[in-house]
Amino acid sequence: MSFQNPVFIPGPTNIPEVIRKACDMPTIDHRSSVFGEIFAPVRENLKKVLKTTSGEIIIFPASGTGAWEASISNTLSPGDKVLAARNGMFSHRWIDMCQRHGLEVQIVETPWGEGIPANKYQEILAADKGHEIKAVLATHNETATGVRSDIGAVRAAMDAAKHPALLMVDGVSSVASMDFRMDDWGVDLAVTGSQKGFMMPAGLAICGVSQKALSHMDAAKLPRTFFDFRDMLNAYAAGGYPYTPAVGLLNGLNTSVNMLLDEGLEAVFDRHHRIAEGVRRAIAAWGLKPCAANPSLYSDTVTAVVVPEGFNGSAVATHAAEAYGMAFGVGLGEVATKVFRIGHLGSLTEAMMLSGLSVAEMSMVDLGIPVKLGSGVAAAQEYYRVGSAAMQAAAE
Amino acid sequence: MSFQNPVFIPGPTNIPEVIRKACDMPTIDHRSSVFGEIFAPVRENLKKVLKTTSGEIIIFPASGTGAWEASISNTLSPGDKVLAARNGMFSHRWIDMCQRHGLEVQIVETPWGEGIPANKYQEILAADKGHEIKAVLATHNETATGVRSDIGAVRAAMDAAKHPALLMVDGVSSVASMDFRMDDWGVDLAVTGSQKGFMMPAGLAICGVSQKALSHMDAAKLPRTFFDFRDMLNAYAAGGYPYTPAVGLLNGLNTSVNMLLDEGLEAVFDRHHRIAEGVRRAIAAWGLKPCAANPSLYSDTVTAVVVPEGFNGSAVATHAAEAYGMAFGVGLGEVATKVFRIGHLGSLTEAMMLSGLSVAEMSMVDLGIPVKLGSGVAAAQEYYRVGSAAMQAAAE
Amino acid sequence: MSFQNPVFIPGPTNIPEVIRKACDMPTIDHRSSVFGEIFAPVRENLKKVLKTTSGEIIIFPASGTGAWEASISNTLSPGDKVLAARNGMFSHRWIDMCQRHGLEVQIVETPWGEGIPANKYQEILAADKGHEIKAVLATHNETATGVRSDIGAVRAAMDAAKHPALLMVDGVSSVASMDFRMDDWGVDLAVTGSQKGFMMPAGLAICGVSQKALSHMDAAKLPRTFFDFRDMLNAYAAGGYPYTPAVGLLNGLNTSVNMLLDEGLEAVFDRHHRIAEGVRRAIAAWGLKPCAANPSLYSDTVTAVVVPEGFNGSAVATHAAEAYGMAFGVGLGEVATKVFRIGHLGSLTEAMMLSGLSVAEMSMVDLGIPVKLGSGVAAAQEYYRVGSAAMQAAAE
Amino acid sequence: MSFQNPVFIPGPTNIPEVIRKACDMPTIDHRSSVFGEIFAPVRENLKKVLKTTSGEIIIFPASGTGAWEASISNTLSPGDKVLAARNGMFSHRWIDMCQRHGLEVQIVETPWGEGIPANKYQEILAADKGHEIKAVLATHNETATGVRSDIGAVRAAMDAAKHPALLMVDGVSSVASMDFRMDDWGVDLAVTGSQKGFMMPAGLAICGVSQKALSHMDAAKLPRTFFDFRDMLNAYAAGGYPYTPAVGLLNGLNTSVNMLLDEGLEAVFDRHHRIAEGVRRAIAAWGLKPCAANPSLYSDTVTAVVVPEGFNGSAVATHAAEAYGMAFGVGLGEVATKVFRIGHLGSLTEAMMLSGLSVAEMSMVDLGIPVKLGSGVAAAQEYYRVGSAAMQAAAE
Repeated sequence: MSFQNPVFIPGPTNIPEVIRKACDMPTIDHRSSVFGEIFAPVRENLKKVLKTTSGEIIIFPASGTGAWEASISNTLSPGDKVLAARNGMFSHRWIDMCQRHGLEVQIVETPWGEGIPANKYQEILAADKGHEIKAVLATHNETATGVRSDIGAVRAAMDAAKHPALLMVDGVSSVASMDFRMDDWGVDLAVTGSQKGFMMPAGLAICGVSQKALSHMDAAKLPRTFFDFRDMLNAYAAGGYPYTPAVGLLNGLNTSVNMLLDEGLEAVFDRHHRIAEGVRRAIAAWGLKPCAANPSLYSDTVTAVVVPEGFNGSAVATHAAEAYGMAFGVGLGEVATKVFRIGHLGSLTEAMMLSGLSVAEMSMVDLGIPVKLGSGVAAAQEYYRVGSAAMQAAAE
Repeated sequence: MSFQNPVFIPGPTNIPEVIRKACDMPTIDHRSSVFGEIFAPVRENLKKVLKTTSGEIIIFPASGTGAWEASISNTLSPGDKVLAARNGMFSHRWIDMCQRHGLEVQIVETPWGEGIPANKYQEILAADKGHEIKAVLATHNETATGVRSDIGAVRAAMDAAKHPALLMVDGVSSVASMDFRMDDWGVDLAVTGSQKGFMMPAGLAICGVSQKALSHMDAAKLPRTFFDFRDMLNAYAAGGYPYTPAVGLLNGLNTSVNMLLDEGLEAVFDRHHRIAEGVRRAIAAWGLKPCAANPSLYSDTVTAVVVPEGFNGSAVATHAAEAYGMAFGVGLGEVATKVFRIGHLGSLTEAMMLSGLSVAEMSMVDLGIPVKLGSGVAAAQEYYRVGSAAMQAAAE
Repeated sequence: MSFQNPVFIPGPTNIPEVIRKACDMPTIDHRSSVFGEIFAPVRENLKKVLKTTSGEIIIFPASGTGAWEASISNTLSPGDKVLAARNGMFSHRWIDMCQRHGLEVQIVETPWGEGIPANKYQEILAADKGHEIKAVLATHNETATGVRSDIGAVRAAMDAAKHPALLMVDGVSSVASMDFRMDDWGVDLAVTGSQKGFMMPAGLAICGVSQKALSHMDAAKLPRTFFDFRDMLNAYAAGGYPYTPAVGLLNGLNTSVNMLLDEGLEAVFDRHHRIAEGVRRAIAAWGLKPCAANPSLYSDTVTAVVVPEGFNGSAVATHAAEAYGMAFGVGLGEVATKVFRIGHLGSLTEAMMLSGLSVAEMSMVDLGIPVKLGSGVAAAQEYYRVGSAAMQAAAE
Repeated sequence: MSFQNPVFIPGPTNIPEVIRKACDMPTIDHRSSVFGEIFAPVRENLKKVLKTTSGEIIIFPASGTGAWEASISNTLSPGDKVLAARNGMFSHRWIDMCQRHGLEVQIVETPWGEGIPANKYQEILAADKGHEIKAVLATHNETATGVRSDIGAVRAAMDAAKHPALLMVDGVSSVASMDFRMDDWGVDLAVTGSQKGFMMPAGLAICGVSQKALSHMDAAKLPRTFFDFRDMLNAYAAGGYPYTPAVGLLNGLNTSVNMLLDEGLEAVFDRHHRIAEGVRRAIAAWGLKPCAANPSLYSDTVTAVVVPEGFNGSAVATHAAEAYGMAFGVGLGEVATKVFRIGHLGSLTEAMMLSGLSVAEMSMVDLGIPVKLGSGVAAAQEYYRVGSAAMQAAAE
């Protein structure tokens, strides 16, 4: 394992030095006050990152999948109906989880590459006079396709239909990298993990929970103990944790949120946009297209690059790993082999991104894909460089 | 946070230098072959630690509580009956979890300080002609009281009753520190975590699963996705993981099991016994007693020290932390305030243990508990020192 | 290498977590402004540690031996006469270095265990009417014998003799642990290293240089380049370093001096005194004596324990290392085999010290030295414990 | 300090993960056998790296400058004559050091960008019938200009002149990156440091010393103690070190030499050549030239890029640091402002190098230097990529 090159998988992302050192912590007594000194600011600052003032933050020692499970099992009961769009592998998996937990999922099948069809949601919700739909699921950023959906539009659809369902949003690959407005959008369950925008190792499942969602806890009949919000909140209130917490990771997360807030959230989002736009310029210079159907859907955290007919996107990722020691993402599900994915979230500089684009170019050329060496790099450089007219135009 | 003194809570334990460095790992692509190079030997070697050849190892990015939940949700269905003894806080919590998951628990109330009454189990199982009891739960080492139960006797009771229930054993604070014989004892679900005998941070829930237990997976109706054995085993078979794994922790666990196997499991158990016996000699020299009712129940990983009538065990732990910066465990549940707990598992030397005993003595004296400074230390020194007659007698 | 036990050699000392992390730094461009942001505060804060306002701080990437060499080669010329007392191995080595650099050393032979005889110095200096003696050497703390000499008395002797020689003081094992007053004592060359009171790895040689000493630089004829003060000061003035600096170590030293100043120097000295006094109580309880001839000479950083006639002090250290994995110092030179040495400086808690005393006791008993197990520990505990009458009396 | 981008200064170089972890070591007793277990293999393996079987390895806790000083002060006496070419800043500094130590230096002034004129050396040595020249100095790789001199030719010149002088070679920026043949070339003093090809922090000065050089030690009259070979060799023979060693750095160096030998020295040299050749292709594509006067002089560890008339090379480096957070080297001495330097030694991948070239391009374009974005990158990509015709041709 050489660890020399940055990774460009869409998470886990590159871990900054200070976060690694914060995670790498000797054992403390998690029942001592030291734990609270770490954990209390984490929870407080995460509210700022999620842009909520009234919501609660609950953190499990688990992955993002665990946060999905916590969101449904603490608010729903077997047989409850939920509404969800399937437009990629991660929205698919959440749907699958709901079904395995005995929920009835009304699925809005959506082309992979498209975003959540808010108008379709509105139609369905308006028709649901009896309010049988208890929750609306939305994947903010489909990591499989590089598509960012408009959560504000989903909320508007719910409001227009005057529907009381809970709004659950998967922000695993968007939170801390792209604007996420829990309160403004009326998100009841915001779900994320440590290993993407927070620049951490995997291991923490983070839930932002609205007061409305909390009010459903006692009635919710899905069984849970490890993922029980009530045990968490009771323990937090007593300065503790219901079982052994992952102290080092929480210490790292404390450092992470401080870094994000010190930089300023809007600056963090701008930085991600700038890095992402350079990648998109490169793709255009290669004569290729992103999987996302139109610019309004472009994700600033991951881009799925559609390879020309007759070529295999997964082979690009595999070749880059084997020949150049650099990790990209393969395509998943419906877009398997059709795309390779470039993760551009977390702790990345322009210089790092240019190394990624350089290797992507070499890999494609090695495999016979007709792109010109240096072409994408040059387009990104022109955008990234100081005084770039393109970047200034984009900023206006 | 000074981190200078070792901790003597009964987990998480002191993390050895090499394990900390193994955990502190840069990001890799968990879909690359590097992941398999870490994960495959972990699973293989964990079988040796659990002493199973036919069982499977399944590891979740969660805590020991998660491993409990995985064990029941993958093998049982709502309404199923389980048998369990309650003899401490951790057996209590597992029972509570079962009840919250809709299982019917036949509870054998047992005095805290006693072990699992195998004869009582046998009686109940023999009477269960219809085999309504689907699982027998057993906490190998009650961390709250420092009591080690005889799992072989539990198995013998089941066999004597010719009862087909699954045997589920909580080995969170015993595995990798005290002898645990999954195959010999016919354990179907062995449950443990990374933060005790494995000398790691919290964050990995480890399950040893017998073939018999695996055969119950499909019929088991408790809902689960994050904790689903099937997803895990399918992904393992394909060289992967069903969601983002905690790679650094797995890398650390790989190092940990190699350390344990290199030292030799029996040598590891002997070392724990030696350290623990020194602690018990100290307690006797203080004129105090362990919570465990008799020597056959003494745990080699944690000792709950009963403080004299009129004194508060929790105050000893609190004072040691505040005055001397050293962490011991407080009493929990029924033995709250009656004991303080000395964790003596994981990576500990005699010298470290003597620093713990020294501080325990000072703390008790400070609080007016009538023990003599140096008395417990001297008793432990006499046992620990090279050429000690006591240790040699004990070894015979 | 287990790294579990603290070390009790009189340096290098135990490195605190935060200092290790500060030293473990990725490569930066040492010609960038980042270097100055690390180095400038180090130099400024070291003045506070040395208690000088007018002196300069010069730091070489070398050991304490290098700092000795820098002190003489930047201020003296071949054939110059210096005055020095030999009362231990380290004063001996400095004398040897002077001789090898062509200096004429007037040696005041002093029993090992005694301090520098200031009255003898005064006599010699008063007799040196022609001021042929260019420098007076003084080892503040003889690490070989655990003897602290009175530097104020040496200065008083020089003043009484109205002698203009430079005063060079070896503070390697005293600075940052015991009071060192560069300006008050009129020290011209204060010599120390990173690996003792600064709680760092070896690798930095630190010189405090008075303006008077600086005024000798140009006339000094001993050749030097690596150790040249002029190159250093010129480079510092330009925000740089004359060759590649040890950036990570300097970053660690920055953290170290901040820790010391945050704690408060007097609090640091008190802490060392408290730890040391506990060790001395233990020694008395064993029925043994320190090498230092009387209490006014007791070092708060290291104690050489005289073993009874017929026993070998080095064997105690060797046995402690082999049997218990704990490092003490052996005797050196004239006191070889007669003593073993307990380092008690740097980052140490009472709990750590008690583990050291416990092992020392076991080791002595194993070798047949007639000390009682627990006796020294108990004496130290009685002194260390909260509310201890002994410590309060001592503090008055 | 973001530490995200690799550095491209010609040392200190990027430190691999495993070496950082090896350096970051807790305190051990350097008088214990553990020290020998680290130090003995370091010395043995360094012989392989230097390609000597009969020479000795001596390591000081110092910088490369210290190794220069050790080489002269252990073999020469004041007034001795040495022969040296001055063709860059580092050969200049070594000459300056000799003069400050009272040596008479016969300087062969050589244009910066040229290598050592072996024929000129031969002429001078042949004329030195009385063998007044005691040492011949040669800088293998001039870090200031990116020029590699032919040490074999220097040896041939000495042999042709039948001259008995010692051959001292500065291999600071060549050893462990480019072929260095101590025995074949008859090098008597090979001088290097930890922070270049060894991929380590600064802090270790490494000398390879021939038996012939060792035979000069006793007669050498330059004073030295810290840098005395005799103290070192005596201590090594006893399994020790003459003063406190930098144990962590030695442990890191142990890891480093194992990495180099595991990869294979010739593979290491090939890798450096490949990376360097890509850089040279990029420079050509930019329409620029290296400072090195002709291809036979091209260094595989550092390239000084000559900027067009009217532009300032230092500004390129400064701008890259400020605008893109990437460190390159400025020009020094005679080539100050005329060049900027790209270090391409140590732990570097093609992907890392391409990020460096990308930033160099952007920086030059930002400053108005007429190079085309992507042009250098494309040339390097074409050379680096798998199946590249250019690289294959180069390999033949």
